[in-house]
Amino acid sequence: MLCLSVNRNLVRQLKSSNAPELDVKRAVNELKVRKKILEDKILELAPPDAGFKRAKMEDLIKRRFFFDNSFAIYGGIAGQFDFGPMGCAMKNNVIDVWRKHFVLQEQMLEVDCTVLTPEPVLKASGHMERFADLMVKDLQTGECFRLDHLIKTQLEKLLTDPKTSDSMKKEYANIITRLDGFSKEEMNAILRDHNIKSPITGNDLSEAIDFNLMFSTNIGPTGTIRGYLRPETAQGIFVNFKRLLEFNQRKLPFAVAQIGNAFRNEISPRSGLIRVREFTLAEIEHFVDPENKNHPKFESVADLELNLYTACNQMDGKSSTVIKLGEAVKQKFIANETLGYFIGRIYLFLVKVGVDSKKLRFRQHMDNEMAHYATDCWDAECLTSYGWVECVGCADRSCYDLLQHSKATNIRLVAEKDLPAPKTVNVFEISPNKSFIGKQFKGEAQKILTKLSSMKKDEIEAVEKQLHDNDDFKLIINNKEVTITKEMVTIKRYDKKVHVEEFTPGVIEPSFGIGRIMHSLFEHNFKIREDDEQRTYFALPPIVCPIKCSLLPLTNQAPLKPFIVKLSNLLASNDIAFKLDESGSIGKRYARTDEIAVPFAITIDFDTLKDETVTLRERDTTQQIRLPITDLIVTINLLTSNLNRWEEVCEKYGIFEPQNLE
Amino acid sequence: MLCLSVNRNLVRQLKSSNAPELDVKRAVNELKVRKKILEDKILELAPPDAGFKRAKMEDLIKRRFFFDNSFAIYGGIAGQFDFGPMGCAMKNNVIDVWRKHFVLQEQMLEVDCTVLTPEPVLKASGHMERFADLMVKDLQTGECFRLDHLIKTQLEKLLTDPKTSDSMKKEYANIITRLDGFSKEEMNAILRDHNIKSPITGNDLSEAIDFNLMFSTNIGPTGTIRGYLRPETAQGIFVNFKRLLEFNQRKLPFAVAQIGNAFRNEISPRSGLIRVREFTLAEIEHFVDPENKNHPKFESVADLELNLYTACNQMDGKSSTVIKLGEAVKQKFIANETLGYFIGRIYLFLVKVGVDSKKLRFRQHMDNEMAHYATDCWDAECLTSYGWVECVGCADRSCYDLLQHSKATNIRLVAEKDLPAPKTVNVFEISPNKSFIGKQFKGEAQKILTKLSSMKKDEIEAVEKQLHDNDDFKLIINNKEVTITKEMVTIKRYDKKVHVEEFTPGVIEPSFGIGRIMHSLFEHNFKIREDDEQRTYFALPPIVCPIKCSLLPLTNQAPLKPFIVKLSNLLASNDIAFKLDESGSIGKRYARTDEIAVPFAITIDFDTLKDETVTLRERDTTQQIRLPITDLIVTINLLTSNLNRWEEVCEKYGIFEPQNLE
Repeated sequence: MLCLSVNRNLVRQLKSSNAPELDVKRAVNELKVRKKILEDKILELAPPDAGFKRAKMEDLIKRRFFFDNSFAIYGGIAGQFDFGPMGCAMKNNVIDVWRKHFVLQEQMLEVDCTVLTPEPVLKASGHMERFADLMVKDLQTGECFRLDHLIKTQLEKLLTDPKTSDSMKKEYANIITRLDGFSKEEMNAILRDHNIKSPITGNDLSEAIDFNLMFSTNIGPTGTIRGYLRPETAQGIFVNFKRLLEFNQRKLPFAVAQIGNAFRNEISPRSGLIRVREFTLAEIEHFVDPENKNHPKFESVADLELNLYTACNQMDGKSSTVIKLGEAVKQKFIANETLGYFIGRIYLFLVKVGVDSKKLRFRQHMDNEMAHYATDCWDAECLTSYGWVECVGCADRSCYDLLQHSKATNIRLVAEKDLPAPKTVNVFEISPNKSFIGKQFKGEAQKILTKLSSMKKDEIEAVEKQLHDNDDFKLIINNKEVTITKEMVTIKRYDKKVHVEEFTPGVIEPSFGIGRIMHSLFEHNFKIREDDEQRTYFALPPIVCPIKCSLLPLTNQAPLKPFIVKLSNLLASNDIAFKLDESGSIGKRYARTDEIAVPFAITIDFDTLKDETVTLRERDTTQQIRLPITDLIVTINLLTSNLNRWEEVCEKYGIFEPQNLE
Repeated sequence: MLCLSVNRNLVRQLKSSNAPELDVKRAVNELKVRKKILEDKILELAPPDAGFKRAKMEDLIKRRFFFDNSFAIYGGIAGQFDFGPMGCAMKNNVIDVWRKHFVLQEQMLEVDCTVLTPEPVLKASGHMERFADLMVKDLQTGECFRLDHLIKTQLEKLLTDPKTSDSMKKEYANIITRLDGFSKEEMNAILRDHNIKSPITGNDLSEAIDFNLMFSTNIGPTGTIRGYLRPETAQGIFVNFKRLLEFNQRKLPFAVAQIGNAFRNEISPRSGLIRVREFTLAEIEHFVDPENKNHPKFESVADLELNLYTACNQMDGKSSTVIKLGEAVKQKFIANETLGYFIGRIYLFLVKVGVDSKKLRFRQHMDNEMAHYATDCWDAECLTSYGWVECVGCADRSCYDLLQHSKATNIRLVAEKDLPAPKTVNVFEISPNKSFIGKQFKGEAQKILTKLSSMKKDEIEAVEKQLHDNDDFKLIINNKEVTITKEMVTIKRYDKKVHVEEFTPGVIEPSFGIGRIMHSLFEHNFKIREDDEQRTYFALPPIVCPIKCSLLPLTNQAPLKPFIVKLSNLLASNDIAFKLDESGSIGKRYARTDEIAVPFAITIDFDTLKDETVTLRERDTTQQIRLPITDLIVTINLLTSNLNRWEEVCEKYGIFEPQNLE
């Protein structure tokens, strides 16, 4: 990628020239500062929708129980939310669209793995280490603070204090720059040296404590198996890679999807559904030959025009630009076709469920924010009243995870591909006499065989020498030494013609935060009727609406009853989610069902008795048509599955002008 | 209910006459023994399908990765399973049918609550106490045993030992009878007195340890909020009752559904999906006026003939009987219409997803096995190679849960109903001077108001006396005494005409174990081709099949390629789950797709080029038809949504006789 940013190039140069870590950190820090200033400026120039009234939206969400704090009658728990009937149905619909858009249409393999995860798995994946933050506690109140954030905030305050001397300012700035790389001991020293207290109470603070963001528990009655609630669903897919490759008849590429809950013990949950402790992820791991990341269906998305915010543009202080996906891959802004294809599919999905395309951008991670295993990463970000919020991450994770699990388990997690031409390789291997070892070591034999088969070249050479000198060698199995004699193994050297080669697949990972997407849907679709401040509603696309239509008899009078029963049965037997509402004026009932985003209202009136027709009203336009009951199911199904637009239906039946009842 | 069993009546008489607990226990124990003998006899007379080969079925499940042990490459964890692509798709389909059958068709309110649950909620629900079992540990190996099971097994062994004296036998029998009621100390005494050792190693055992089956963790960074992974999804519904009643416009009855994971730290998980530590539940809480449990739609299920196994029949040593639901409710075998209606709907659901109705019975709980809050309970049990397995519980939980949460939170969880005629009630209440209290107590005012409003008659009388004597009285708020003076409250006595009355709703709870239902589906639909022992498959109903059709081009030759692309796009764009299989003979491909339960196979051959027709083969009959591509989507949709049977389709197109390719 051509990048004009001097600073970014500086970082790269420093890194590649093995410059002192401190210099790299300083340069990285300067980049971070520049980025922050730039972000603030962008938000200032294009502030989140000025007319948007978050409090009114939150009132509607709470009042009609889309979602609300869990266990509220017990005082509630921060960072946990229960979805009520409307939120739950909407969430199910978003997931249903996701499953059709990704799993069905791309023929992915969907799996459903367990939440409880034993420690060794998360050690290998890096979560045991990576998910630990340093914390301090207020010694009086027990309140907790993330240590790096606390030090930074305190020193930044001192930096702006006119009483601080220039030499101290220099020292503080220096500490802030180096903060990321400090050890626990160094952090403790800063706490002591600068006499940092609780910013809330001024009380003394504890020493630094390691705090891992994973929820831990014990599996089984003995209390000896430490387990964690998974912090992402991806690991369940990686540990099943061998079975999944087998299921796919050993062919690459293939994608595996998983939808499920993940858990992170956030120190300070906030912003509604955006930062929570329990959330639903929909993740895809697309396994691919790292040497060929072309995608056969890339052409189908190449003409999409997306708002891309490249790392270069961020560095150079430019804004995001609209560009065709095909062009972005050609110009190497996006690293490869597969990554580009998924970015295109993510865009189509988000717009389909109701994200406003004008409030959607794809932002590339800068070098300094990318996870160490990723080679490229793009976030789909939605503009909300909280700023730009990452809703989907799309990372090229390279081979990191499979290699890590392979190392931890000694099990080869690889695929094979045909060589262009067969080649001859020198084999140097240790071949066990299985039945001999089996008889000799019984229960431990399998472990010995595994150990032997995983030996590397230099280990076999060492063993060969020992066998030559002593006629045996030692292995450590289950913390005990066992002796392998020369009768048990043969060392072999020979040439072999091979037609295939093994390789560790690369992984492209699109990862969707369902709660964050829902937050964006609420914000992007919240409306207030022009003629009435009190009438608020969500103009969600019918495909994700919790209820597809309401059934509103004009009056409670007896002659309409048989039609209420008839239409209720008709809708229910066609699996259409509907709501019968019989109380109050028609206008009140329209308002009530608009609030919960019901896109279509069926009204039964006295003309229904005469000609078996009903009216159908659309939520956003409040327009109505009149159509025969026999057409009703087909019309609603087409409208709610995105196959017909309201305008098309109006054209077919003509707009019906009733007396104004609203 | 008329029950002939002398013993059952004896238990009831003893209970109602306040007989010594020991006598009741003895009688109950005798009932239990009789029941066990009876169950064994029934299984002996009608043994689980003798031709069924569990090992072959398990091989197929593992080989094609329907599900398998989680984290197998790390050695696995007992009681946890990952669903592979086929198991996951099948599970999604079962849940999808469930949602349509219950939530959509009955217009239930579905919610989605959090897994992490704070301790006070589970204290109120009884899980903190009820879910604790006593355990002992092997002091050398750390192995754990459930204490009551251990004592029982050891003493039963001694009972059959010819060396045991008659007096000792009497004592052992006495202990076994009384076991359920022993305290921790009494259990420890038995351990010591009878010198009970580990049955595996003979090692000494620890003292009894309280072991709660809930997984515990800490919520938030301070480590002070104890939380548990929910052991059932029901509590999330009960704590949201007020919001849900409000959402339903304060009308009763209404039902709330939830589908989600629950967790139980089983001491010894076993039997595949039947006893696991992490599982999916689909639960319904139907809130109803306890004085009127009639159901408006009961007539729609009244003629269903079900295999009912009443508590009476179990007691009297009779077998289950086939009876119409209407008759069972009329004769009071089933307590009320609502319970009966749900039993009928459960039956229809289970048969729809593929449970063999001949291997399905509804067994009523006997008094001694019913949870203390339940007034009637029926289990839908499926006959499997593990015996009769409870797959769905359907309990009348009465008002227990709402009352418990109401008591714990001081929040009234009630509904209102119109009185037949208005009535006059004497009101005796303590009325606070809110602004005075607010000014005086500030932050504590709300707690004081809550306390005052929850006072009962005798408390108000006591307060009235104190106000009269001292002009003030004391309250304990936040562990501190506060003084309420006579200016702050008024005691009122007056008559009021009321039109409605408040009541705590009763709850009918159908609770579905999705994993257990899936186990039954696997067993009930596992088949071996008559002509080939090696060809095994699952004859699942199309509605739950993971993949709806396979696409099998006869050869790899170029002329067929455009049709492969055309049909693939056609199926994908219609959201039909399909699998393209191009390798191996047609016969091998049929066998391979039969294994994963694909019900319909589309074959593209050279006639397709001529007339744009394809063949469609049905899995169970292996019959084929030939039909135009233009009819394909409609035909598959009708077949896979249970709207058309294969025979109807054969009648329409005629059976096609291809060369025998299998």
